[in-house]
Amino acid sequence: MTAQAQPTTSYFVNHAISTWNLIRSERPLIHCITNTVVQNFTANVLLATRSSPAMIDIPWEAGEFARYASASLINLGTLAPAQQISVHEAAASAQAHGRPWVLDPVGIGVLPVRTRIAHELLTYHPTCVRGNASEIIALAGGDSSGAGVDSRESVIAAQAYAEDLAAHHNTVVAVSGPCDVITDGDRTIFCSNGHEWQSIVTGSGCALGAFIAAFLAVEETSNLAAVVAAHICYGVAAERAAACSSGPGSFVPAFIDTLYSLDDDAIAAYAKVQ
Amino acid sequence: MTAQAQPTTSYFVNHAISTWNLIRSERPLIHCITNTVVQNFTANVLLATRSSPAMIDIPWEAGEFARYASASLINLGTLAPAQQISVHEAAASAQAHGRPWVLDPVGIGVLPVRTRIAHELLTYHPTCVRGNASEIIALAGGDSSGAGVDSRESVIAAQAYAEDLAAHHNTVVAVSGPCDVITDGDRTIFCSNGHEWQSIVTGSGCALGAFIAAFLAVEETSNLAAVVAAHICYGVAAERAAACSSGPGSFVPAFIDTLYSLDDDAIAAYAKVQ
Amino acid sequence: MTAQAQPTTSYFVNHAISTWNLIRSERPLIHCITNTVVQNFTANVLLATRSSPAMIDIPWEAGEFARYASASLINLGTLAPAQQISVHEAAASAQAHGRPWVLDPVGIGVLPVRTRIAHELLTYHPTCVRGNASEIIALAGGDSSGAGVDSRESVIAAQAYAEDLAAHHNTVVAVSGPCDVITDGDRTIFCSNGHEWQSIVTGSGCALGAFIAAFLAVEETSNLAAVVAAHICYGVAAERAAACSSGPGSFVPAFIDTLYSLDDDAIAAYAKVQ
Repeated sequence: MTAQAQPTTSYFVNHAISTWNLIRSERPLIHCITNTVVQNFTANVLLATRSSPAMIDIPWEAGEFARYASASLINLGTLAPAQQISVHEAAASAQAHGRPWVLDPVGIGVLPVRTRIAHELLTYHPTCVRGNASEIIALAGGDSSGAGVDSRESVIAAQAYAEDLAAHHNTVVAVSGPCDVITDGDRTIFCSNGHEWQSIVTGSGCALGAFIAAFLAVEETSNLAAVVAAHICYGVAAERAAACSSGPGSFVPAFIDTLYSLDDDAIAAYAKVQ
Repeated sequence: MTAQAQPTTSYFVNHAISTWNLIRSERPLIHCITNTVVQNFTANVLLATRSSPAMIDIPWEAGEFARYASASLINLGTLAPAQQISVHEAAASAQAHGRPWVLDPVGIGVLPVRTRIAHELLTYHPTCVRGNASEIIALAGGDSSGAGVDSRESVIAAQAYAEDLAAHHNTVVAVSGPCDVITDGDRTIFCSNGHEWQSIVTGSGCALGAFIAAFLAVEETSNLAAVVAAHICYGVAAERAAACSSGPGSFVPAFIDTLYSLDDDAIAAYAKVQ
Repeated sequence: MTAQAQPTTSYFVNHAISTWNLIRSERPLIHCITNTVVQNFTANVLLATRSSPAMIDIPWEAGEFARYASASLINLGTLAPAQQISVHEAAASAQAHGRPWVLDPVGIGVLPVRTRIAHELLTYHPTCVRGNASEIIALAGGDSSGAGVDSRESVIAAQAYAEDLAAHHNTVVAVSGPCDVITDGDRTIFCSNGHEWQSIVTGSGCALGAFIAAFLAVEETSNLAAVVAAHICYGVAAERAAACSSGPGSFVPAFIDTLYSLDDDAIAAYAKVQ
């Protein structure tokens, strides 16, 4: 093995294993402002990691709780009027108190309220932005043909936008797809774990945003490595769960079971990252 | 086979098969304003059909999205104040842009806010109204003893009300029960597929409303046939799922799995329509 | 068997069996104002008991429905502005019309909006207050280190607070934990049924609040015995469900299946109460 500037694949896999174990021992408190469609699944995903989720999304409480928690997720999926206020409170509080937070700009592009709010939230410096290709292109100012919450764009088409967005806002950007693209603007990593049923289970992407927050909550060295670690563990669990499911319905409980018992050996054996 | 004015049972079964396959190939974008209790299950039901669900329910976005989507569902189960505005936006937009939409008047009758709004929404000409017997009787102006979201009335008691409502508003009315009654005011069809556990799984009826919207999204000839097709496919999947479940809990993932893999043979073999 | 002032263990177990059967035959209408994270699971838990759940949580309807229902649950988990109004409506209506109701003060202590509202709601005399140790200590005026929705306090630490709270407000207080403490201020009962996975499934405690409401809805002699009965049945079902699950994901459908088919023999054989 020779000296080199860039981390190796094995670095990311080993980092994923150590971060995963850190979450399970530290049990970080994760604050989620997320859409009502996926709150239940998101909370159960976090609980399976041994994190402690709290869906505190009302004005006067969201800002207070963002300071109190180890990390926050702000997901724009169903921005009821009170949430339109509380997302600002929470993002400002997370920034002010040095807490990591993840922005998931669900469905931005064609939808006016969330598109404006997503751009406003960027000014509070999210630690990570996660979305599908259409959402990331739209957030980076590109011309997306985004159709609501499902992406019509390929992940590869979004790569340059993701890199620009990450460099410009000093954040980590993750584009979800069959092959996930994760970049801090300097280095770009590709994770190809996962299963097609994830796109047929509502909230798979949204819960990944909360999952990333748990990894950032315990991270000490590299936000990029933490986000890559989250994608590895999530994707490996999805693959192993699909292998013992009959379809996207039975996949959901199997995914939670698999996450709950995911161990070092499975991560090391199945991780696909480069 | 002789010439006849009325469609035969085999017409409805064949139509169900062809519409089901059309949804799976066209993957329509389905807009849902629905209650927070059932959003997750509803989205997963739509995804199992290969439709693309989007739960866009806030003012300024709901109307825009109703134009953009192939069909909309408006369900009145949990009408938070913002939804009380957005349902009007969405219904007006769907009507203005010629998009099919389904009205599900959950729990109307005794509850004042939703009862008023349901009647207002009728003026935007829903393509289909789906409810239980109490809700349909209440919407048609009858004296329902409706008890919240579960019906105390028999489906047969609601048939005449359903026919009047359909004829008066030029819509298709579907009354859910052990035997579903579906009418356009001229013809009345009876579907008896389904399983008793559907009444013990929250959102079975609400998700059916979204499921109907997917069928209307790809329909080209007969709204009545599309709504009948939805009931056939939904009920057959429920029966097949119950056959491999241990109770109403395991029925839920089994139902999603069964929908995901439902094929022509199963529809043809098990459809019960007359 | 000798005469005695205090009920015996067998009294509580027999009472649990008879109340369970009463719910299944009377099918009470249970009104829930609860948080959006757990509405779906809560409704399915109630349906598995054969109760009829209705999540009516908007102003102008919540008060009306609290009168109409057999019992209500008021859970403060996600208090959107409209719910901040409707919880007062519902509690006032339940009190005025003599309907039993359960208060679940989720996450009070550090969070300002819900902490204030929980104390206000106490003035409407809840029939039962259910929470974790941190929440009960905070409601009783103690100095809780409560961290959001998970308790950092032991149940035993909360016992004296629970007894004071029950005596002062003439209610039954239930503290959830590995061993549940249930008290009316005069007598204190301990239930140790349940499984550790309940703490890894979001809404296990919240749904228990609704479950208690179903028991109070049919109770005629002792609110304390009704709340104890709910804990016995819920905990026994959890234990039996865990025995046939692979992890907290598959536990959820198994728990619903087990509740649905829970019978006298299982309650009698597995109840742990003293």
